Amino acid sequence: MTSALLDALRKGNRLALSRILSQVENGTEAGMAALEELFLETGNAHKIGITGPPGSGKSTLVNALARELRRREPNKKVAIIAVDPSSPFTGGALLGDRVRMLDLQDDTQIFIRSMASRGALGGLAEQTEALSQVFDAAGYDFVLIETVGAGQSEVDVVNLAHTTIVVDTPGTGDDIQSIKAGILEIADILVVNKADRPGVDQSVTHLKNMIEMGYARSINNGKHHLQDFRETSEHETASAHWVPPILKTVACEFKGIQELTEVILNHAAYLRESGQWHAKDQASIRANIRRQLIASLLKDFNQNVPADLVNSLVEEVQKRAISPNEAVRVLLTYNRNNSLESSE
Amino acid sequence: MTSALLDALRKGNRLALSRILSQVENGTEAGMAALEELFLETGNAHKIGITGPPGSGKSTLVNALARELRRREPNKKVAIIAVDPSSPFTGGALLGDRVRMLDLQDDTQIFIRSMASRGALGGLAEQTEALSQVFDAAGYDFVLIETVGAGQSEVDVVNLAHTTIVVDTPGTGDDIQSIKAGILEIADILVVNKADRPGVDQSVTHLKNMIEMGYARSINNGKHHLQDFRETSEHETASAHWVPPILKTVACEFKGIQELTEVILNHAAYLRESGQWHAKDQASIRANIRRQLIASLLKDFNQNVPADLVNSLVEEVQKRAISPNEAVRVLLTYNRNNSLESSE
Repeated sequence: MTSALLDALRKGNRLALSRILSQVENGTEAGMAALEELFLETGNAHKIGITGPPGSGKSTLVNALARELRRREPNKKVAIIAVDPSSPFTGGALLGDRVRMLDLQDDTQIFIRSMASRGALGGLAEQTEALSQVFDAAGYDFVLIETVGAGQSEVDVVNLAHTTIVVDTPGTGDDIQSIKAGILEIADILVVNKADRPGVDQSVTHLKNMIEMGYARSINNGKHHLQDFRETSEHETASAHWVPPILKTVACEFKGIQELTEVILNHAAYLRESGQWHAKDQASIRANIRRQLIASLLKDFNQNVPADLVNSLVEEVQKRAISPNEAVRVLLTYNRNNSLESSE
Repeated sequence: MTSALLDALRKGNRLALSRILSQVENGTEAGMAALEELFLETGNAHKIGITGPPGSGKSTLVNALARELRRREPNKKVAIIAVDPSSPFTGGALLGDRVRMLDLQDDTQIFIRSMASRGALGGLAEQTEALSQVFDAAGYDFVLIETVGAGQSEVDVVNLAHTTIVVDTPGTGDDIQSIKAGILEIADILVVNKADRPGVDQSVTHLKNMIEMGYARSINNGKHHLQDFRETSEHETASAHWVPPILKTVACEFKGIQELTEVILNHAAYLRESGQWHAKDQASIRANIRRQLIASLLKDFNQNVPADLVNSLVEEVQKRAISPNEAVRVLLTYNRNNSLESSE
């Protein structure tokens, strides 16, 4: 990675941006070096996660939001990261959807990036965070992250957003109540899209009830990933008074999009004023450091302790000759003694 | 924890079992010591995970399975771990369901244990594994683990099972296709319960199509948790030829239960013959060791490195004065130097 490429990215060159995104996504050495340098230029972008089941019209909503954000803030840039395999951005949708995406392509201040989700479950959140950082450093003011709300990995993805929007549609049965409960916990804003369909009022009432029952209780504290790691509490605020509003939209007709955009911008203001913007940023930095720390400690361990020892201990455990705890004690002692030797 | 209590457990005392389960579930020192000792007596139990959306009749199915397993194998014991908040075992269901559970309580060779799932997301799989080990050591031959199929944590829970059964019902819409896709990946056996309802054949066809489309491809390799940890491949087999069968049941009328039980026992035989039983056991041991190793390395780190240093570095990163990578390098150097000093 030449610094010329990074400079080109800083000047708004889309090809340079695209190349660096690929390097980062592929985890090349050059990509990681670029990411480390670019990190120092991050901290401005408003990251907005949009999640919901397939068929809820997330992509159309993301499209509409991008357009409205650009209309309201003509000097600001919008990035879209699609981590949803059914998204038209990533190639899983109908021709109609694809055509709808095209009008975004004409706006040079909008950049769309899709990510493969299949097969990369474990590291999806980290990867999305890395791409967000590149966009942030490249001067993108809004980063829209679209993901299907289907599991923990998606929850992890949207957890890195400042604002999480959960999209539902009218008439979704009670069958998936507990799934929605899990997703509701991370919602800052709820959207009932396709609100021209029958059953919209029941859906709104249903969501309202779930919120009142406390399903959205634990939102916004920014501490999800850090339960066993050190943290200061100075930026935690007692004023966690944001109650997720429920909005109705018909994204394909651009209905309700202005109101939704208004609420998104209000949420950003709320986060900044309440100190939660700062707290969220800190939480993601702590999670990042923790992740790198564990990777490094395990790497050191793997250098200090021969694989044969690990394997023979696993075998002993599998024979029930020793407990896993005993195996860990042996490994830790070996690791400690060997790192002493190598440092002397 | 007295060894008298452990001896009582070994002799089949249900009160002793119950007490030890509580100690283990609460993570007390005595519980952890008991678990370490009991581990050496594990390795026999067939762990069977049952997952599916709320309303699919999982609990009734688990109930019926327990009864049928006892009928077929009168000398064997059955444990049930319910980690589903909507399960009648854990207290989330209607009176009718509760009454249906009562007939299991009369069989002293069946033991039911419910676990609170809410709020313990991160460690649910570990906790379930620990309880399974206690049951295993206490001589329970079958451990049925019931969980709602709603997210990654549930996937983790059933991943520890030898046999994973995914339960569906007729007429579930296409809306949650990708959710089912995620769950299908872990299925060894598919059950369409409530098969007396309309739409059962479409459901079977739909599931069959999804399997043929490869959604269940990555099953049974037992390597989910171990991507970046050492492992031998000697027990991996090339004979991963189990294609998940699809069965129809009406659990509340005991229809299809004998066939399902037959398939479950066949699957156990298949696992043993193909070497996958051994591979799964090894994978869970490696995951266990890895988990303990990371916890210990982080504990050492926290002893070596003062919290003030961590916090001041986080602050520098948050100011974008240094990168997270740089902070990690400083922390690792400090950790290394300090552990040298304390060992001298």
